[in-house]
Amino acid sequence: MRLALLGCGTVGTGVVKLLRGNAALLERRLGVPLELAGVADRSLKPNRSLGLDAKLITRDAEALATRPDIDIVLELFGGREPARTLILKALTAGKDVVTANKALLAEDGSELFVAAAKAGRAIGFEASVGGGIPIIRTLREALAGDRQRAVYGIVNGTCNAILTMMTEEGSSFGEALGIAQRDGLAEADPTLDIEGHDAAHKLCLLVTLAFGVMIGPGQVHTEGISKITPEDIAYARELGYAVKLLAIAKDDEGAIEARVHPTMIPARHLLAGVGGSFNAIYIHGDALGSSMYFGRGAGEMPTATAVMADVLEIARARAAASLKISGTAANLLPLHSQDQLLKASQARPMSSRKPPEAMATDVSRETLVAANPLGFPVKGMKRARVKPMDDVLCEYYLRFSARDKPGVLGAIASVLGRNGISIASVIQQGRGEEEETTVPVIMRTHEARERNLKRALVAITRQKLAGAPPAFIRIEEHL
Amino acid sequence: MRLALLGCGTVGTGVVKLLRGNAALLERRLGVPLELAGVADRSLKPNRSLGLDAKLITRDAEALATRPDIDIVLELFGGREPARTLILKALTAGKDVVTANKALLAEDGSELFVAAAKAGRAIGFEASVGGGIPIIRTLREALAGDRQRAVYGIVNGTCNAILTMMTEEGSSFGEALGIAQRDGLAEADPTLDIEGHDAAHKLCLLVTLAFGVMIGPGQVHTEGISKITPEDIAYARELGYAVKLLAIAKDDEGAIEARVHPTMIPARHLLAGVGGSFNAIYIHGDALGSSMYFGRGAGEMPTATAVMADVLEIARARAAASLKISGTAANLLPLHSQDQLLKASQARPMSSRKPPEAMATDVSRETLVAANPLGFPVKGMKRARVKPMDDVLCEYYLRFSARDKPGVLGAIASVLGRNGISIASVIQQGRGEEEETTVPVIMRTHEARERNLKRALVAITRQKLAGAPPAFIRIEEHL
Repeated sequence: MRLALLGCGTVGTGVVKLLRGNAALLERRLGVPLELAGVADRSLKPNRSLGLDAKLITRDAEALATRPDIDIVLELFGGREPARTLILKALTAGKDVVTANKALLAEDGSELFVAAAKAGRAIGFEASVGGGIPIIRTLREALAGDRQRAVYGIVNGTCNAILTMMTEEGSSFGEALGIAQRDGLAEADPTLDIEGHDAAHKLCLLVTLAFGVMIGPGQVHTEGISKITPEDIAYARELGYAVKLLAIAKDDEGAIEARVHPTMIPARHLLAGVGGSFNAIYIHGDALGSSMYFGRGAGEMPTATAVMADVLEIARARAAASLKISGTAANLLPLHSQDQLLKASQARPMSSRKPPEAMATDVSRETLVAANPLGFPVKGMKRARVKPMDDVLCEYYLRFSARDKPGVLGAIASVLGRNGISIASVIQQGRGEEEETTVPVIMRTHEARERNLKRALVAITRQKLAGAPPAFIRIEEHL
Repeated sequence: MRLALLGCGTVGTGVVKLLRGNAALLERRLGVPLELAGVADRSLKPNRSLGLDAKLITRDAEALATRPDIDIVLELFGGREPARTLILKALTAGKDVVTANKALLAEDGSELFVAAAKAGRAIGFEASVGGGIPIIRTLREALAGDRQRAVYGIVNGTCNAILTMMTEEGSSFGEALGIAQRDGLAEADPTLDIEGHDAAHKLCLLVTLAFGVMIGPGQVHTEGISKITPEDIAYARELGYAVKLLAIAKDDEGAIEARVHPTMIPARHLLAGVGGSFNAIYIHGDALGSSMYFGRGAGEMPTATAVMADVLEIARARAAASLKISGTAANLLPLHSQDQLLKASQARPMSSRKPPEAMATDVSRETLVAANPLGFPVKGMKRARVKPMDDVLCEYYLRFSARDKPGVLGAIASVLGRNGISIASVIQQGRGEEEETTVPVIMRTHEARERNLKRALVAITRQKLAGAPPAFIRIEEHL
């Protein structure tokens, strides 16, 4: 089984290490050896410490991705192009593809999945969400018999590491970001992570796997963590909450909520215990109830483990195909030969409900083909009907810099009340020793519609009841 | 796709509800409808509330399990017989089998898996460990490229519910058990759960999936929770620990540790936050590092969800086989027709390393066949070399009822010291107001070998330094 690696950066290096270090284990599991047959990289000497044979390395990714001896192409360049074109060419050339490219799949997933279905080829993308956490397989297979209602994901390790530092050390966002950058947990340009875009890309894939509808990043309401202050985190703690950047998807009878934003969750909730750069995805289904999947969401070896899971599944299926063993589920089903199958179908007595031939005619082959790799038919999959953010119902944490004069708290409360927002609790701190013109007022609201909240905050600002635009953080109380 | 249900108790009822309630969802995912074709139960009127058609119900489980029109047999009787015989007959009759029967698989798994491989049939058993948590798939597929080092499971919901009550309410074991029984969380005869046997059965399956070796329940050191006192839990909290019944498996360079016992784990660890009847499995792998899988470990609908995951995977593969689509991984790979495969193999240029025919000869078909459903080849799988409990290294919590006279603490410490056990911390409570002949002394030790600990405890008892046999609980500090 011959593999081509497109890109030998962090994840590619991890894959090479697994292929070498676990060669015997992999061959025992699979029955055939996995061979690294080529590596395409911008540099002709990627990662010298790996000591890759120079003959394996090329700059011509397209030639490698379509080379006749290659079975599986691992697209680990990241980014939209040339990744998209390379994957399409590899599929057309009869290769199965494994990728970790969430941005590409979020933007161009439906094109790629349809192309794969047409070519009769696989796209494995376990590594694209949650790093080493097997969330793709879990939604597609393990939870496939259940109806999912809500998905809450800590899917960006950079943000979680920064928020954990701010919570544990009391540091500011800027300080925590600086440390994360120093420690290699954040990029030099951290925008994609800290503004929530990476999480939104991942949420698109989670929505499709959980609910069977397509959605693009443009449909996801996306806010990052750069405006969160240590004060907000301290007040959250006082109110019994932790602050996490959550990617949230809900299916409200066909109307999909899809949003990424800082969220207060009960401090005792299992998700609140997910610290540092770890990821976790918490799912609520009708039959299963709550379940959670926790692990390393990024990094060389964790992401390589997810890539390898897809490689093994595809390699097993290809090996079975080359043996002309059919009708197999690569990992669950024992592989049986055509002979056995034929015998089995001939042994089927006449009293049997349907002979196999008849069955073949009333099953839509298209349906079966298209039912992968998302766990729902790709062909004809509908675009999600996303609930406007204004219609979303949440509880809210509000922080006002209130004018320090009599009657202001009452005035704020009555603006909220006029907009149908009722207050669950208030923290009003005593006046400091020095003369201040504003004092912080913290409120937790009962459930309210976002439209009403925004209208109220505009009115409060217009009436100059608060010295600065009020801050708010959404609360998920019942996840 | 026609299903036969053997047993219509709790899980069977859940399966019927999913088949009915999610019929449209399941057919969308699968492309073919799933039909309940028969139900075998001791009672001819199982679960009246389901309103099952009387024509579906039979007492003759064997006839149903081998009936020609049945595709998949769901064994949900539980227990060793007749479940074992029924599964063997179903496999021989060409049925694929799904079971939730951990006791049977732990005892007779190797016979059943070999029989399935010979018959070219599947055994799905996702529901046998961790209820709705997809731990079987995860170990077999998602983590297959990694080398697992340790597995820590909260896999018995009854014990976890009892320990949670004891921790949160300060109740005694007996009181908590009574409440658990009243609430349906514990059986009238709770022995199998509270003495750790159920967890040991599940651990056998986890060991095989994680490390690729066979192990029987007799090889698992098994202790239950009936001797845990509210005092132990209170002292644990003082020392920064929570008490959990853990099923622990480690691979120490080929020597397997397999043990089920009450365990103190750091109170801040994610596993310590798993309360009530929830289950969770925490895994440590070389490449992935830590990951955790959390959810409902039992109950009608969660367990039915796991059964349905296996049914869907098998049904997809059978549907593909009936279409003569080959070389497919049921859920990952798009299904492609023989024609496409044939074309692909003919299109393979002469320069290609090996033509498919040559490949077929040097891949051991047996290996591929036997590589299921455990993720390792069933045939030739070795019996685990289990490390004797005496050789296990742990930190320990010790509770002595020490004679209340001068020098006793020193004498205890020196007995421990002579046995190579060093003390990390001591809690010695002041003497009460009333006359007491013993006072509680709590010690936490550094890492020590179990053999040495037991020798020391025997010496302490023999020298009458403690008023009752000392209690000890193993600590897992670095999980």
